[in-house]
Formats: sequence, C-alpha cells, structure tokens
Amino acid sequence: MADEKTGGNMVIAQSGGPTMVINQSLVGAVLEAKKHKEIKGIYGARHGIEGVLREDFIDLRKERPATLEQVANTPSSALGSVRKKPTPEDCKQIFQVLRRYDVRYFFYIGGNDSADTAHIIHEQAVKGHYDLTCFHICKTIDNDLRENDHTPGFGSGARFVAQAFMGDNLDNRALLGVKINVIMGRHAGFLTASAALARQYADDGPHLIYLPERPFHVDHFVQDVKAVYEKLGRCVVAVSEGISDAKGTPIAAAFTNEVDAHGNVQLSGTGALGDCLVNLIKGKSNITRVRADTFGYLQRSFAGLVSPVDAREARASAIFAVKTAVQNISGSVAIKRQPGKKYGVTYECVPLASVAKETRHMPDKFITPAGNDVTRAFIEYAQPLVGPLPKMGRFRCIPVKKVI
Amino acid sequence: MADEKTGGNMVIAQSGGPTMVINQSLVGAVLEAKKHKEIKGIYGARHGIEGVLREDFIDLRKERPATLEQVANTPSSALGSVRKKPTPEDCKQIFQVLRRYDVRYFFYIGGNDSADTAHIIHEQAVKGHYDLTCFHICKTIDNDLRENDHTPGFGSGARFVAQAFMGDNLDNRALLGVKINVIMGRHAGFLTASAALARQYADDGPHLIYLPERPFHVDHFVQDVKAVYEKLGRCVVAVSEGISDAKGTPIAAAFTNEVDAHGNVQLSGTGALGDCLVNLIKGKSNITRVRADTFGYLQRSFAGLVSPVDAREARASAIFAVKTAVQNISGSVAIKRQPGKKYGVTYECVPLASVAKETRHMPDKFITPAGNDVTRAFIEYAQPLVGPLPKMGRFRCIPVKKVI
Repeated sequence: MADEKTGGNMVIAQSGGPTMVINQSLVGAVLEAKKHKEIKGIYGARHGIEGVLREDFIDLRKERPATLEQVANTPSSALGSVRKKPTPEDCKQIFQVLRRYDVRYFFYIGGNDSADTAHIIHEQAVKGHYDLTCFHICKTIDNDLRENDHTPGFGSGARFVAQAFMGDNLDNRALLGVKINVIMGRHAGFLTASAALARQYADDGPHLIYLPERPFHVDHFVQDVKAVYEKLGRCVVAVSEGISDAKGTPIAAAFTNEVDAHGNVQLSGTGALGDCLVNLIKGKSNITRVRADTFGYLQRSFAGLVSPVDAREARASAIFAVKTAVQNISGSVAIKRQPGKKYGVTYECVPLASVAKETRHMPDKFITPAGNDVTRAFIEYAQPLVGPLPKMGRFRCIPVKKVI
Repeated sequence: MADEKTGGNMVIAQSGGPTMVINQSLVGAVLEAKKHKEIKGIYGARHGIEGVLREDFIDLRKERPATLEQVANTPSSALGSVRKKPTPEDCKQIFQVLRRYDVRYFFYIGGNDSADTAHIIHEQAVKGHYDLTCFHICKTIDNDLRENDHTPGFGSGARFVAQAFMGDNLDNRALLGVKINVIMGRHAGFLTASAALARQYADDGPHLIYLPERPFHVDHFVQDVKAVYEKLGRCVVAVSEGISDAKGTPIAAAFTNEVDAHGNVQLSGTGALGDCLVNLIKGKSNITRVRADTFGYLQRSFAGLVSPVDAREARASAIFAVKTAVQNISGSVAIKRQPGKKYGVTYECVPLASVAKETRHMPDKFITPAGNDVTRAFIEYAQPLVGPLPKMGRFRCIPVKKVI
C-alpha cells in the first residue's frame, strides 16, 4: 500500500442526470491525472457509487488518447450513471472498497446529491484516519448548485432549449394557436428561462415563461395566455416541469406517483403536465389549436450540439479539481464569474458541505415582477454561457396593393 | 392584363406542416423567378391559400438578397402556413383572385394535400380557359409523397431524429431502463425508421422500431421490450405516432377527439401515446424505470440543424419547378435517385394528380420480417439524405482486477 507521500490510486465516477459535456469533465480529469506522479491507477467506477460497491472499475489509463477525445465530445455519462442515495451502510462499504483498492483520490462528477455523497465519504475517511482526498466536480443542466455562477452542462442544455424555441416560435408563427413547451428543472428555472434567448424580433416567443421560483396560478396562466393570443393571434409558452402551486405542491404531482431514491417526484419522461395545461387552455378559452411538447431527455443528451464555452469549462473545472486534489485538498470546484463586461471565469475550491444537498434558485433580479417572464439581466447572464445562436431570417413583408 | 406571350405575375405559398428547409424552396423559386422576364410580380401569399382568399400578398421582389438568403436558412414557413382543405367554393374564389391579379404562375409548396389543392385550381383554370401554370413543390418530413425517391424536409427531420436517438441511447445506457420515443409520421414510417441511423455500436438503440406500415400488437410490443431488456438491461424504442391496430385504428386515437380539416386525427402536440405505452410496459412487466418522450414539433422546426443535402435539394427542386413552369408546363417536381453507388438525384416534372392525396408507404424491403425493425436497405437509402453524423465515443472498458 502506498503511503501518503507516494500517493495512490484514483477513482472517478459520474452520477445523476447526464449532460452533453459531462464527459469533458471526465476526460479532463483523466488527462490531468496522467500528469501527476502521485496518481497511480486511474480507475473509472461504472454507474457511480454502484460501481464502487460492486468493484466494477475500468482502467482509464488503458484508453487511447484518441478514444478519450472522442468520448469527451460525446453526450451522456460514458462511465454510466446512477441515482442512488447511499445509506450509512453503503457509505461504510464504499469507504472499505476505496481503502482496499488503495484509493487516495476520489472524484465524483454530479449535482448537489453527488456532492453530498462525496461529503459523506470524506467524513468517513477522516473518521477512519484514512488519507482520502474527495473532490466533487459540478455538473447539472439545472444550474442549481450553490457557490457557482453557473455549472457545466447548463450552457449546452440552454443552447438546445434556445434553438428549439427559435424554431418552435416560427412553427407557431406559421400555423398560429397556442404552443406550450415543458422544460426540465425541478426547483430552479434557469433552463426554462433560457427559452428567452430564442427571441430576436419584438413579437418572438416565448411570450410567457413560468418558473418553479414563483407560485403557479391556473387562473393567471389562462388570463396571460388569452391576453397574448388576443394581441398576436398566437402564443408560445415556456413552462418548467417543476412549477408548483402556492403550497409548493408540483402541478405535475397530480399525474405521477413515482418517487426517486432522493424522494423527488418523477417529473420527466412523461407528457402529462403539458397535456394538462393544454386541456386547461382549451377548457377556459375558445382557442382551438393548443399544443404541448415536453422536451424531455433531448435537452440534456442531444448529440452534436454543445455550447463551446460549456464544453471548455466542463473540462477546465475537472482539471482544476485534479490539480487541487493532488495537494491533498478535498472540496468542490466552483465556477465564479469575473467582474467586468468581458466574460471570463475563475475556478475555486469550496467546501463539499457548501454545495451538498441544497438548491440554488433564480435570483429575483432575473424574474419580472409579474412572475411570467425573465429580465434583461437574465439574458445578459445566460448569453455568454450558450454562445452565438443562429440568426433567424424574416421578410420585410411589403404588401402588394389590393385589387379587389 | 398581360397576355400569354408576355407572361404575368407569380404567386407562391407554403402549406401544411413546416420543415427545416421549406424556405430554401421558397427562396430558390424567388431567385429563379427573377431570372425570367415572363414573370412580372413575385407575390408571396401569407398562410397558403388563406392568403390568396384574403388577398394577403407580399412583394417578394422588394426583399433584399441578404434577407432572402437568411430566410432560406431559417426553419418553418416564412410566409406562414395553413391546414385548409379548400371547398369547391374556395377553389372558385382562389381562381377568381388569381385571375384578377393577373397571376399566370402559381406555386404551392407542400405535401400531398397541397398537391391536391394545386391540382383542383389547375383544373378550374383549364375549365375557365385561363392560362395559369400550377406547380406543386414537394415538402414533407414524412417523406410520403408518391413519385418521389424522397422529399425535401425529410433529410433534416431524419437528421434531428438520428442525433436525438444517438444521445438518448447513451442517456439510457447511463441510467438504464426502458425509453420510448414517439416520432412523427401519420401513415408512413420513414421518419421513425431514421432512428436506426443513430446506431454505431452493436448494442446501440433503438432496439425496436414500430412503424404505421405494420399492425401494432400490444402483446408483441410488451414481449419485444421484455426480451431486449432481459438481454441488455435496457431498451430504447422508436414508435411512430401513427401506429395502428390490426383494424387500422390509430393507437393514439383513444386519447384524442381532435380532427383536422383533412379529417386526420390529431396525433402531434400531445404526450398521451408515449405515456400510454409506458403504462403498458409498467403494468405488464416488473421494469420500474420506463420513460417516454414525444419529439413533437422539434423534429420539423429545430433551428440550426439541417442536412446539407436536404437544404440543397429543397432549393434545387424549386428552381427546377420555376424553370419548367415558365415553359407553361404544370405539374409537381419529383426527386428521382440516380442508379449506381454514388448518390445523385434528378428532378422530373410529374402530373399533379399523381402526387395528390395518396400516401407513399415504406416499401416491404425496408422492414424486417418481424416488423419491429428496419433493414440494411433502409439504412443505405436514408444515410445519404441525412449526411455525415457525429461519431459517438466509447471506452474499451478494460476491467481493473477485483481485489475483494
């Protein structure tokens, strides 16, 4: 067994919902790890902590450089993922496995639940006087991790949402009616809000945006939609899957009884919320063409579409994590935005506990007072994370003089 | 009024569901029309024949070249679209308007219903001894027009579906379970079948493909899914929105009572079919993680994603239509594939009646005998229409020797 001075092996794993750039983080960490002689074996655990429990490790040193780069540019978690809240018994066992494999560096790429897992394992190691550096590398399309200006995965998800709304706004402009799109984001509305990046002309949709940060009132929703429809003859709406009533009960909860390992109600992978909102509008107005789409898993795993900034930062944050970890410092890598007009970020190490469990919400300054749209401040915040978007053409539409 | 020798004005309009390249056809026609002195005014009717009935024309000669190019690269119908089956009374009125505006060239970009409309108007003109050249320019993501090897719009829709499945297959590989994706295509399964283009490794999804060309048996479906799941621990399924039972009743018809102007049951803009299939699998197996996404309008209007071949052919077919029309020939432009290994097409003028109304289905040679997958012949047919797809990276996965 290697002692503290000579280092030891490293385990890296991925957890929670995949993103389009989560493999950039994985590959960034592997490539950086290869540069540090303290790190001996570079093991990938398959399906997160499940792979640790099952001793299902792959040797990432044996992957060719070209494969690593190709995987980096591939969406979804190449090591497999898991949604598992480890019990105290699991954590004990994970720690035992890591110890037996002489693992001195443990990297967990994931959201706030994953940060919590890394935190618990780290606490076990401290208690057991075992020198294990635990690092959490952020990812989440929801963009809801504390301590971070934004998180890897969000920019690409937001790019997908923006491009989808650009096209869908034009689809709705061509065929009119009401179109409702349901977007991921259980507690935080960042991804739903990104739909606003699609706007290029004054009458472009989304015309209304409903976020989990504000209570959803059915009557207000119907009134809002009617008002836009009366003005434009059409209405495009962005709705977060996590919209909840004044009591905090998700509107979607009425249609599902499935709950995940973390106690969260299943919101994705069903079109029920969208369909319910369609029926609401149809029932309370005389608008006949009302449609809903639920973007579902496409917005986190679509192949061949990333925000270049997001890809770069996902890799850079993992490189920062490895560089910090080899100094025997545990923590979570947080992205901070540099002040000033020009976009730039720095990476910082923050305590695992500060990122674990809790959710970051959209700040008030990003939401309009009426609660059904985002502000200019949000657009300025999100634009650099998504990168330049395609420009939509539009005719000047000079009318031909009527004859009849 | 211009007589036959000196030509006259041109009207162009778009109809039916938008596509990602329908504006390439529009702009191709406008640019070509400018080259022919027989064509005087170039008028765009807004929202298809509705715009003709309302005399809602815009002057396309007054659009700047840069705008035209930008519009060509913008998804959805820039002139607006319509789903309207004109009554005999409407057709009479349309013909009257065209006559009063001295329109000698009428171009209608759309599917088989639009070809039918162009056909009826042309018959009226012949009956009224009015010299009106009527041309139908194909578009449909469904790829279901007779006389055509394929139709503009399909390649880009298929590209979206393929890229979506590439990512979603990896999402499912990371988190396991059963994933069902519902794809557009009322009577023809081409777009659903394109999901097969996503496969790059032997175990890649979609593992099962259900098309409207084969009766959908609930029991077979459940058995198929269970068999794949038992083998791989996961299963990705592509399902056409138009799947129907042995009697020809759409499975989705149970969840909707909305019917469009052409008598078609509304299939898109609802997640009900996907949710029903999820509940079927959950109820008849002990698989717990079962999800569905309905791709909806994204697959026809997504911004910033086209098949380059599709964009080129959409423009070229409109140019061919205008060149033919100025010779006072009415008809529909059909894309024929050149024989031989190297992909190439020719454009032909076919009678309006030969494209109108009827639907082209997937030929038997494209469907496996079991009816739940496509053949190699389909892949070879579709690949060149979609263009090169992103390569998905995958680790070699050399296991680390177990210690415990």
